[in-house]
Amino acid sequence: MLEPGAPIPGEDQLEDRALDPANLEQEWHEYSERFNALLEEKAESKLAEIAAELSPGDLSEIVRPLSVADTAVVIQLLPRDLASDVLAEIDKRSVTALMELLTIEAIADLIEEMPSDEAADLVGELDSDQAHEILEAMEAEEREEVRELLQYPPDTAGGLMAKEFIAVAETATCLQAVEAVRTVEEDDREHLHFLFVVDEIGCLSGRIPLVEMLLQPWSTPVADVMERDPLRVDVELDQEQVAQYVRTHDLVTLPVVEDDGVMVGVISSDDVLDVIEDEATEDMGLLAGTREELGETSPIKVARARLPWLMGALLGQVGCVFLMMHFKADIQATVALTFFIPAIMAMGGNTGIQTSSVVVRGLATGEVNVYHMGRYLLKELATALLTGTMVAAALYVVADLVVGDPALALVLTISMLSVIVFAAMVGTAIPLMLHRFGIDPAIATGPFITTSNDLLAILIYLGMASLLIH
Amino acid sequence: MLEPGAPIPGEDQLEDRALDPANLEQEWHEYSERFNALLEEKAESKLAEIAAELSPGDLSEIVRPLSVADTAVVIQLLPRDLASDVLAEIDKRSVTALMELLTIEAIADLIEEMPSDEAADLVGELDSDQAHEILEAMEAEEREEVRELLQYPPDTAGGLMAKEFIAVAETATCLQAVEAVRTVEEDDREHLHFLFVVDEIGCLSGRIPLVEMLLQPWSTPVADVMERDPLRVDVELDQEQVAQYVRTHDLVTLPVVEDDGVMVGVISSDDVLDVIEDEATEDMGLLAGTREELGETSPIKVARARLPWLMGALLGQVGCVFLMMHFKADIQATVALTFFIPAIMAMGGNTGIQTSSVVVRGLATGEVNVYHMGRYLLKELATALLTGTMVAAALYVVADLVVGDPALALVLTISMLSVIVFAAMVGTAIPLMLHRFGIDPAIATGPFITTSNDLLAILIYLGMASLLIH
Repeated sequence: MLEPGAPIPGEDQLEDRALDPANLEQEWHEYSERFNALLEEKAESKLAEIAAELSPGDLSEIVRPLSVADTAVVIQLLPRDLASDVLAEIDKRSVTALMELLTIEAIADLIEEMPSDEAADLVGELDSDQAHEILEAMEAEEREEVRELLQYPPDTAGGLMAKEFIAVAETATCLQAVEAVRTVEEDDREHLHFLFVVDEIGCLSGRIPLVEMLLQPWSTPVADVMERDPLRVDVELDQEQVAQYVRTHDLVTLPVVEDDGVMVGVISSDDVLDVIEDEATEDMGLLAGTREELGETSPIKVARARLPWLMGALLGQVGCVFLMMHFKADIQATVALTFFIPAIMAMGGNTGIQTSSVVVRGLATGEVNVYHMGRYLLKELATALLTGTMVAAALYVVADLVVGDPALALVLTISMLSVIVFAAMVGTAIPLMLHRFGIDPAIATGPFITTSNDLLAILIYLGMASLLIH
Repeated sequence: MLEPGAPIPGEDQLEDRALDPANLEQEWHEYSERFNALLEEKAESKLAEIAAELSPGDLSEIVRPLSVADTAVVIQLLPRDLASDVLAEIDKRSVTALMELLTIEAIADLIEEMPSDEAADLVGELDSDQAHEILEAMEAEEREEVRELLQYPPDTAGGLMAKEFIAVAETATCLQAVEAVRTVEEDDREHLHFLFVVDEIGCLSGRIPLVEMLLQPWSTPVADVMERDPLRVDVELDQEQVAQYVRTHDLVTLPVVEDDGVMVGVISSDDVLDVIEDEATEDMGLLAGTREELGETSPIKVARARLPWLMGALLGQVGCVFLMMHFKADIQATVALTFFIPAIMAMGGNTGIQTSSVVVRGLATGEVNVYHMGRYLLKELATALLTGTMVAAALYVVADLVVGDPALALVLTISMLSVIVFAAMVGTAIPLMLHRFGIDPAIATGPFITTSNDLLAILIYLGMASLLIH
């Protein structure tokens, strides 16, 4: 921990409001320690002074390790716009507790200041009484925007979009469009890069990059400057498909329309960045067999997220117990057989994880196309024959040296190759088939494949031993 | 496959140049089939007509399953700007082969048309003779830009940035800034959202969102409009840190500077989107024990990417063989012991993967902070005691019913709980320690943890059996 009086790293450049990008994690940690020390000393004016110089993104990381009570103190010390930005980025799990430490009016005030999408995300996290009270305390316009956004499921285009966009009529001139821009508050303008053009009933008909407005005589009708029929998505589109669309077309701002074509919001690239991160995190968790949130601190919640996979795997392992019992006589006759059970299982398991995770990730990013299943199976077959041969050969040498039983060494070699080939086929085919049937392959892949491969590995190994040795 | 004459989905809306976002994968597949059919019929003018209506992002997905020769035909049929965009997005592995089917002049012409970052990425993929020939055939200005960008390692800010940005002098007026914007070609303007201001030696001193330019009298000096000391990164910063910085601050365009503060390029949010995707893919692959590229079609390359992990795991499993041999007498005395070896190993393995993947992902996204190691270990200990107790209790019931040996059931219960607790501790501590020592935890986590857990599981289980039963 830093001494209370120690210099803060980079204090001489505090006016930058930004920490060293090469060392963010450590800088955040040192500021957290410093905040802790100042909170203990009740040196609130010093804390306010330091915090006011930091950017909202950094501040939300710095307060992350603080207690909820301390976070509430820091938020109350910040200028309104900064407090609002920090509150918008704060860990969603601590929001409910945090709300109880601030007054309804203070919270409503900070939420009004947020972009509508972030305001709605935050209100959506609260329990319904809290949310109701806060919405009531908000000004009418912001309240209506948040209410509208709360109607959409959070994982759809409607759940991602914000209401902050400028749409002008097809009949407007560039001058009228600029006047519309002028009505936007300065804080909200920074993220404005496109104007949209709508027809008389509000249907999206065009898009104008602001840069083009700079180059036009302002008497020009917007209809002469706009790109017609810009890319758009439906308000109900799933967020993963929104992300894929934005990535395919390298978009910065994506308009969102309702069924009838009426424009209702915009999605920006930073929202999509979060979606891509979250989807990757979710897929990785599912492959590993858990649905917990990263950074979740309650062991009960984490245990609940992991147990279904563990219990499912245990059920599969009961199958392995019965399978082993079936081969009891063989095991008793050649106890050395059992020495290699872990190796056979582990190599099958590793191969299954390698193939399935590559397929699951490829399906998520679009590198693997489900319409070419045969091609992937062939590729994985060839790969497994290569890796399997190498691993089996290495195992033969080990078995021959260690056990000195040529029959066992032969059984081991053949079954290792077979197990690796089968594991690769299972690991490739199952995610592809799940995806084809519209099931998220990440959900069912991890534990299902590992357990199938364990059963298969034991069946092949002991089955072959039973046939060839006895 | 579609019949050659069959209608293309959405042909009536072809002027949109965009496919249905809710159904991209299938639409790409149907277009690929249609392209294949037209290529077989040598119906090149029809193909050119259809392709010209599609967007570059969609086209690069549509040509992905085609052969390299067919892709070359399609590219030659496209208008120059579209051909250039498609070439920039095409799968990097097929670029070298593709280059051999087009003339040097044609390629140089298409590369000149690309944004400088994409041009440099593409030239960087070629072998040095090809790259040299193509650079020689390019116009001087574009050649110099690409040469400059090629100096930077691809995974740094310098490797991500483009040279297309506008920087005006501190002494300029807004009118002069607008004149600078006017010199940019129309195609390149769409991605222009900020102007940068530099001092007399080229050091970055300010940033102006274009929207602010719209609202100023054009006689205003840019120095009066600009935000001073905008966020920036050093040209040598690692791309993961660039991505973290952009995400923390929700940036659309990030200026890149050299050591001395001179501005040399810009990074845009779509580049960062790709970095985040690629880093997640790499981490997921490493956790699963492979460094292959997604969509890699050569089994030899895939096998080479996977073998080091498999062989490492096999080495660890040899340890398991010796461990088992050590307990030979116990196994011979109570053969039922072996029936549960797969279950004990699998549950330890699953727990290790659950904990380590959550820690590795949390470290990558910032949700897990390495400075709170004790806190994570405690949380995981509590979680493992919860899940371990449930799993061990379930196993006790199974063991009691199946084997009917109370001593064995007791050994199984105690060792299952211990194995799960140890696996959770290993899975948490190892990635945190690797990260602390500056090693990417994803590289060493997967196979290392699984193998350690296998050894530990067998040691605990058979060791306990040896103590308690005999």
